[in-house]
Order: sequence, then C-alpha cells, then structure tokens
Amino acid sequence: MRQRNKPWAEDMFAKNPNLVTASPSECKGKWNEVFGNTNPIHLEVGTGKGQFIIGMAKQNPDINFVGIELSASVMVSALEKLIEENITNVRLLNENAQDLTELFNENELNQIYLNFSDPWPKNRHEKRRLMYRSFLELYETVMKPECEVHFKTDNQGLFEYALHSFSNYGMVLHEVSLDLHNSDFEENIMTEYEEKFSAKGSRIYRCIAQFR
Amino acid sequence: MRQRNKPWAEDMFAKNPNLVTASPSECKGKWNEVFGNTNPIHLEVGTGKGQFIIGMAKQNPDINFVGIELSASVMVSALEKLIEENITNVRLLNENAQDLTELFNENELNQIYLNFSDPWPKNRHEKRRLMYRSFLELYETVMKPECEVHFKTDNQGLFEYALHSFSNYGMVLHEVSLDLHNSDFEENIMTEYEEKFSAKGSRIYRCIAQFR
Repeated sequence: MRQRNKPWAEDMFAKNPNLVTASPSECKGKWNEVFGNTNPIHLEVGTGKGQFIIGMAKQNPDINFVGIELSASVMVSALEKLIEENITNVRLLNENAQDLTELFNENELNQIYLNFSDPWPKNRHEKRRLMYRSFLELYETVMKPECEVHFKTDNQGLFEYALHSFSNYGMVLHEVSLDLHNSDFEENIMTEYEEKFSAKGSRIYRCIAQFR
Repeated sequence: MRQRNKPWAEDMFAKNPNLVTASPSECKGKWNEVFGNTNPIHLEVGTGKGQFIIGMAKQNPDINFVGIELSASVMVSALEKLIEENITNVRLLNENAQDLTELFNENELNQIYLNFSDPWPKNRHEKRRLMYRSFLELYETVMKPECEVHFKTDNQGLFEYALHSFSNYGMVLHEVSLDLHNSDFEENIMTEYEEKFSAKGSRIYRCIAQFR
C-alpha cells in the first residue's frame, strides 16, 4: 500500500509509550508485565490502520493484543484510533515480523492473526509471504503448543498457497470458509481493506491453521 | 442422483466380463494380471456415467483405470461408452467404496480420484462423505506410500470439509484451486456433472491430498 510519508509519526509514537512500545526487545518474556495482567496475548502480524485489532480488543477485553506493523506512516493511523477510543489492551510495535523471536519468548503468545497479507504473487518472492515455512517456524516458536494462526484474505492465489504451506508444515485446518461473508461466522471483525473490497464484491477466504 | 431403474444393466455387465469385473474380490492382489501388464493402477471412486475415467484412459494409455460405482443403472452408461470407444485400460466394478480393502491388496493402487462426490451436508451423515477419516484409512491402505487423492467438486461445503479432513489426517495439500476453470490446469477432464454445472456458472474446486 502506497502511503503518504508522515514525518510526525515517530514523534507521535514517542509521545505515547503506553501504546507504542519503543524498545520491544526489552519486553521479551515480560509482556504480561507490560500489560499488567496475566491475560492471554494475541498478535496481529501486519496491523495496518488498526481497525481489526481495535475491534478485537473491544470485543475481547480479557485478551491482550499486540499489533506489529512495518510502516510507521500506516501504524500512526492505528495509534490515533487507540487514543481516540481510549483502548488499554493493545500495544503497537513498529517492527519487522522477521524479528518475532527477538520480541517474544518461546510460548509467550496464544494466537496469531494474519489479515490480508501482501500476496507477493511472484514465485521468486515466495519467502516473503507470511505463511512461508520460515514464518511458520517463527510463529510456532513464540506461541504455546497447539495454538492457532487465524488467516483471512481476498487473494485467491495467496489462500491456495497458504493451504499448501500450512498442510505441508503439518498444521490442521479448521473453520475453512471459501466465502466468509456468506458463512455463519458472526463474530467477524473487518479490516479496512476487507470492508472496501468485500463491498466491491470480492470473496473473502478464511481458515484457522493449528500447530500440533 | 435419481436414475431410472435399468433392469437390463446386470445382464449387460454379465455379457462384458472383460470390462465389468463380476467377482472383483477374486482379483484382489492380481489386478496387474487382470489388465495383462504392470502399468500403474488408478481408481475413481464414484465413476458415475464414466466420462471422466474414459477421458483419462484415452489421455493416459499407459495407466490402468478402475472405476467403482454403487449404482448399476448409472454404471451401465459408462459401460456403453467403453464398448463404443473400444477402451481396453478400464475396468468397472459395481461395488461399494466401503469394501475397498476386500477388492485391492495393500499398496496395489497408485492414485485415487474423487469427483463431485455426494456432499452429505447434514452433520449426522459426515461418516458417509468419501473424505471422512475412515475412507482415508481405506485409501491409504490400498495405495502405495506417499500416493495422492485427486479431488474436485462444485460443493463449497464439501470442499471446506475435505480441506479440514485431509489436513487433520496429516495429508499435504497440493495444487489447490478455488476456481479450476479459470486456472492454468490445462489437462482437466470434465465429468458429466462438471460440464453441466460449470456451464451454469458454478465454481469448481480442486486439490490433491498426498499421504505421507
């Protein structure tokens, strides 16, 4: 997604240390202390403008949410929403998903969400897809045993790839939906992208992939 | 599929013992002798009127095909086509898929096709679906190690179920296509049902599930 550069983003992050964790690697193994409770911790990889994670945080006040987003200019929109809605069970990290094991201890997370991830459609970019084997290894490391990755996308090719990659890793697929918005999944929280593209008629695909 | 009763079907089977194997359990472990060669053997479960298996047999003369079909009145149409086209690498069995291990030895088959299988949509009928765990156990028994089940359907619910069941069994998914007729899979042989429903605009789903 091409975004306007927002030079004030970094300043705004620094002014909200209770919402944007500046040195997350120092929190590794101590995220329960950061949140001040022992609630489960769910991670969204690629939080974007934050509509999903904030909707989830409001729907699930007894769960802590961490959103990781590479683009500062995009993440600042999520921060603005957090401030506006006075949300306390979310932390944002302006980091790269490749560094997950520097940010979280083994078994520190309970669930991971991948929403409308970049499809990287060219074969030579396969390793950049967030369901590529090396990313699954990272997720398995930082999550407790038998935990789940919740994935949705409107990109048919990426969903087909993900089904292969998850099953090849030995994960079990649950709640596969090939048309989420015409399914009986009622608690769906939409991302900004999902609202826009489903309104244009795109099918939304979803599945849960569980480690074992 | 509701079919007219065809009382002459049994007679026609009996008159064509080179195409319809009357006592297939006697062939168990000897299918290479039945075909008179050592070519690989592929099985279609639910052959219907035979368009798929006959198309495959013509496309792949070095593979032997066995089609199993419970309904004699449906299978007789496949037999008529076999006779008309003078096909020699197909055998039809008017049998129940639940009896596979009485018909084939361990490791006797090289591939299995499930095409537009009955979806049995009610939860209480899950065990009748041809990708239910007990059927996968039968397929794994009669196939060589690491062999594949090739599955296609227009039924979204059945495909979603199949992805769960295959992955839960530990199988790896390959060539997942969520819109087969708009994919780059060029060697597709259509079933009668597939021709009819894809012409009406139904999406066709396909995947390969490999044992390991």
